[in-house]
Amino acid sequence: MALHLLHKKDSLMLPLAATLQAVAQTVESCQVCGNWDTQNPCHLCTDGRRDKTILAVVENVADLWAMERAQRFRGLYHVLGGTLSALSDVAPEALRIPSLVDRCRQGGIEEVILALNATIDGQTTAHYVAAALEGLPVRLTRLAQGVPIGGELDYLDEGTLGAALMARLPL
Amino acid sequence: MALHLLHKKDSLMLPLAATLQAVAQTVESCQVCGNWDTQNPCHLCTDGRRDKTILAVVENVADLWAMERAQRFRGLYHVLGGTLSALSDVAPEALRIPSLVDRCRQGGIEEVILALNATIDGQTTAHYVAAALEGLPVRLTRLAQGVPIGGELDYLDEGTLGAALMARLPL
Repeated sequence: MALHLLHKKDSLMLPLAATLQAVAQTVESCQVCGNWDTQNPCHLCTDGRRDKTILAVVENVADLWAMERAQRFRGLYHVLGGTLSALSDVAPEALRIPSLVDRCRQGGIEEVILALNATIDGQTTAHYVAAALEGLPVRLTRLAQGVPIGGELDYLDEGTLGAALMARLPL
Repeated sequence: MALHLLHKKDSLMLPLAATLQAVAQTVESCQVCGNWDTQNPCHLCTDGRRDKTILAVVENVADLWAMERAQRFRGLYHVLGGTLSALSDVAPEALRIPSLVDRCRQGGIEEVILALNATIDGQTTAHYVAAALEGLPVRLTRLAQGVPIGGELDYLDEGTLGAALMARLPL
């Protein structure tokens, strides 16, 4: 890759360098939700067509993009910037939890969806965030856990199958 | 593998042949649930410690084994022996649906869990079975669909993430 860039110094390497510089200067973290964008607040926070009463709490911008790809969520986001992790030494202060509490306290938000990963760290963080939001007038929900779409029972891990069974729904 | 068997004719090949013959003669399909076992009715149907009021409808014996591995389900099973499939030309008559209706009609069963795969064929079959059981005094449920345990949003398909979002639960 490096040799290819050197071969195409003028047509590829210098434009790439210029673009990287421009992106580094123009893209910043949205002061409201933590998304990356060239404008601040970001285009999601300022989009009048989105439902401002519902907030999805995600771990990072990659998860926000994943939610956007799913095209089902029309509310706003709050990016935590990571998950609590004893192993990686991530403490609650390192995450954007205080600003989440502030947003909920300001009013107008009715539901907070904890759209965190179904991992140990993700679920630990979900519990911590839930505790931090206790007493505030918001409804807390979490993503459903169970059999993924297209999933075949025979190939599922026991944990997921057990969870899907425990959380079974009326037909 | 064939050469290895030929090399060990007496110690491996003949015992394997004898075992296959014995299994073919002794293992049969349970007349009640459709599980494979050396006894009929099978050891699950005759186990007094299992909850006889709850029935899990599964596609095949591999799925029954998957449910048993999960160690969360303590009821009885009903193996359909396949799923409806227009492409593979599997019609309702080829499945063990009439015997399921009979079991539910005999009474004693309070809940039927449609533990079918989250695939097109699985869900089509689930709808067909649900229609066949309509009017009978059983509660119909299905496995929860959503984020698998350990699942990270960024790596999930849009369908699963969308389904998990739509089926979100209060925390």
